Amino acid sequence: MIPLSQPPASSPEIDLPPRILLGPGPSMVPPRVLRVMSTPPVGHMDASYLAIMDRTQGLLRYVFQTENALTLVVPGTGTAAMETAVANMVEPGDAVLVCVNGYFGLRIAEMARRCGGDVRTITRPWGEVFSVDEIRAALAEHPARVVALVHGETSTGAAQPMEGIAAAVHDCGGILIVDTVASLGGVPLAVDALDIDVCYTGSQKCLSAPPGLGPITLGPRAVQKLEARRTPVASWYLDLTLLRQYWDTRRVYHHTAPINLSLALYEALRLVAEEGLEARWARHRRCAEMLWNGLEALGLALHVAPEHRLPSLTTVRVPESVEEAAIRSCLLAETNIEISGGLGELKGKVWRIGLMGYSAREENVLALLGALDRLLG
Amino acid sequence: MIPLSQPPASSPEIDLPPRILLGPGPSMVPPRVLRVMSTPPVGHMDASYLAIMDRTQGLLRYVFQTENALTLVVPGTGTAAMETAVANMVEPGDAVLVCVNGYFGLRIAEMARRCGGDVRTITRPWGEVFSVDEIRAALAEHPARVVALVHGETSTGAAQPMEGIAAAVHDCGGILIVDTVASLGGVPLAVDALDIDVCYTGSQKCLSAPPGLGPITLGPRAVQKLEARRTPVASWYLDLTLLRQYWDTRRVYHHTAPINLSLALYEALRLVAEEGLEARWARHRRCAEMLWNGLEALGLALHVAPEHRLPSLTTVRVPESVEEAAIRSCLLAETNIEISGGLGELKGKVWRIGLMGYSAREENVLALLGALDRLLG
Repeated sequence: MIPLSQPPASSPEIDLPPRILLGPGPSMVPPRVLRVMSTPPVGHMDASYLAIMDRTQGLLRYVFQTENALTLVVPGTGTAAMETAVANMVEPGDAVLVCVNGYFGLRIAEMARRCGGDVRTITRPWGEVFSVDEIRAALAEHPARVVALVHGETSTGAAQPMEGIAAAVHDCGGILIVDTVASLGGVPLAVDALDIDVCYTGSQKCLSAPPGLGPITLGPRAVQKLEARRTPVASWYLDLTLLRQYWDTRRVYHHTAPINLSLALYEALRLVAEEGLEARWARHRRCAEMLWNGLEALGLALHVAPEHRLPSLTTVRVPESVEEAAIRSCLLAETNIEISGGLGELKGKVWRIGLMGYSAREENVLALLGALDRLLG
Repeated sequence: MIPLSQPPASSPEIDLPPRILLGPGPSMVPPRVLRVMSTPPVGHMDASYLAIMDRTQGLLRYVFQTENALTLVVPGTGTAAMETAVANMVEPGDAVLVCVNGYFGLRIAEMARRCGGDVRTITRPWGEVFSVDEIRAALAEHPARVVALVHGETSTGAAQPMEGIAAAVHDCGGILIVDTVASLGGVPLAVDALDIDVCYTGSQKCLSAPPGLGPITLGPRAVQKLEARRTPVASWYLDLTLLRQYWDTRRVYHHTAPINLSLALYEALRLVAEEGLEARWARHRRCAEMLWNGLEALGLALHVAPEHRLPSLTTVRVPESVEEAAIRSCLLAETNIEISGGLGELKGKVWRIGLMGYSAREENVLALLGALDRLLG
């Protein structure tokens, strides 16, 4: 064997700054959740771990407000959950309608194209939402087997009203996929009451577990479409017909579960259950209103109309006189507060402020408003 | 809004048994690695996190023994890394050759078919390995653009000799993908010296980080094939043309990195560098030989011929008189030691004993041999 190359000269110990995370995710992680991640792991087929999987499913059904049997955690980020939804529902040639009013709608449409879908999009300006009539009109022109939209658009701060949308989709025989990555656990949503067929989220926003896992749930129509597929899902890793065999009583090996991360998600979901969904939604709303009022008191303009604002993610317009990125750098350097710039067509035009999960606390809102007052004053 | 459903009646605190993990992965996790996971996270675009990404790449280049620029961590398990390798290299219609001598070769072949590859397989009995001549003969019949094989077959305990294989593949203009999920960091392998084009592993075996991440590296031929693709990669989540833009200096947002898990991998890689690859390989070899000798002293037969045994994973034949699963249950119940049964065509016929990473310690070998002596004696 030839001589080995040497390791890098310096790989210093981890020493991260104490950030207050008020960007579009990840959110801050409660101490109890951080702590369980250090548990020495057991195997992914150990009865003690399988019991935690079952309990996680129960807690997820509560958070999604569903009785769907097919409720599980995708071993990847919220984006992996998005791709799981799209890749399992869209077969080559399927007519697909994606409602695009922000970056994540664009991403769904791109994934649906890669799955061979016959994709049509309808659009609204970034920060606005869709009406049921618009969706019905689009479906009349392009009867879609799969319709996808984003409940809480992380790129715009708009919350899509959900009433009536599932009926419009089902009337034309379609499946409704709803992205709740930035909203689930922080903003009112109930999968069964709204008749949503596929709903997914990420671990790292309003649920306040670390990033890396993607909860998803499928209702009966979606399961039927999955089971009637003519072609295998292009992704073996994200194939729900295989993933479900690990999560149900069959316990067929599919992948080595991200055990420590899954313990963190379980603990985070326990915290959601202890607080209660209504109380949690109210806390997010209360912090958001405090932020909105405070920003307006500083003379800043909010990007989204009051009735469509997402409590977990606020977009605020950058004043003309101000250099967007410089303010963010100062915030981070002087006060350890992270907020984010705009994405896509809002780049340079807005700041994005997240109040998600454990980040949604009054002390964080006060710190941010105080810091902005000092920097912009 | 209709009344909400309630959370499950009981979601008890996490309280896992103290397992000694001697199965095919996950392996045990060193205390330093467990501890860093509890670090309060920063954002996935924070300079402090980007620095850790860079350092992780440097350490991975050492572990892979490569200078490949395109060396990064896939945000999913080793199986996600496998799919990343296959989905990025195989385009619809590409001739693909997969060498199948165990379960994971079968999995690669299935993934390649789902990517639209024109897949041919050659096979060896589970527990045996391929000769260069066999591979050359197969390529003469089916000149493949992509050839894939498994270095350390977790399902059989065989270690594939690598000398001469890359030359055979390159002589017919192909790309060589090598799965080192069960071997990297524990068994000698050097990507550049062996001229391997694509190599991937999992975080949770010989590297002894928790499961959930998949390091991968691509050499110049693989990068050229990636950049010359006629079609987009079917999976957006695992598309290396996008993933690389987050890992290189462009820092384009693609997904929210699994931050805490990535800290764990970084710490695990620091431990590999501190120990040194040669010392680590020697430790795995020493523990394996101690296990092999001890098992034979108990009258048990090893499944793989001595010259092709994988130090990190041993398959031992279950004696005729013994109930395979009952012994495993007793081991777990009485001594907290986890070993695994056979997979696929070795189901019921062998036990699989892993000595990987932090699990590869003499005290664990002694505990297992003592327990087996008691149970089988």
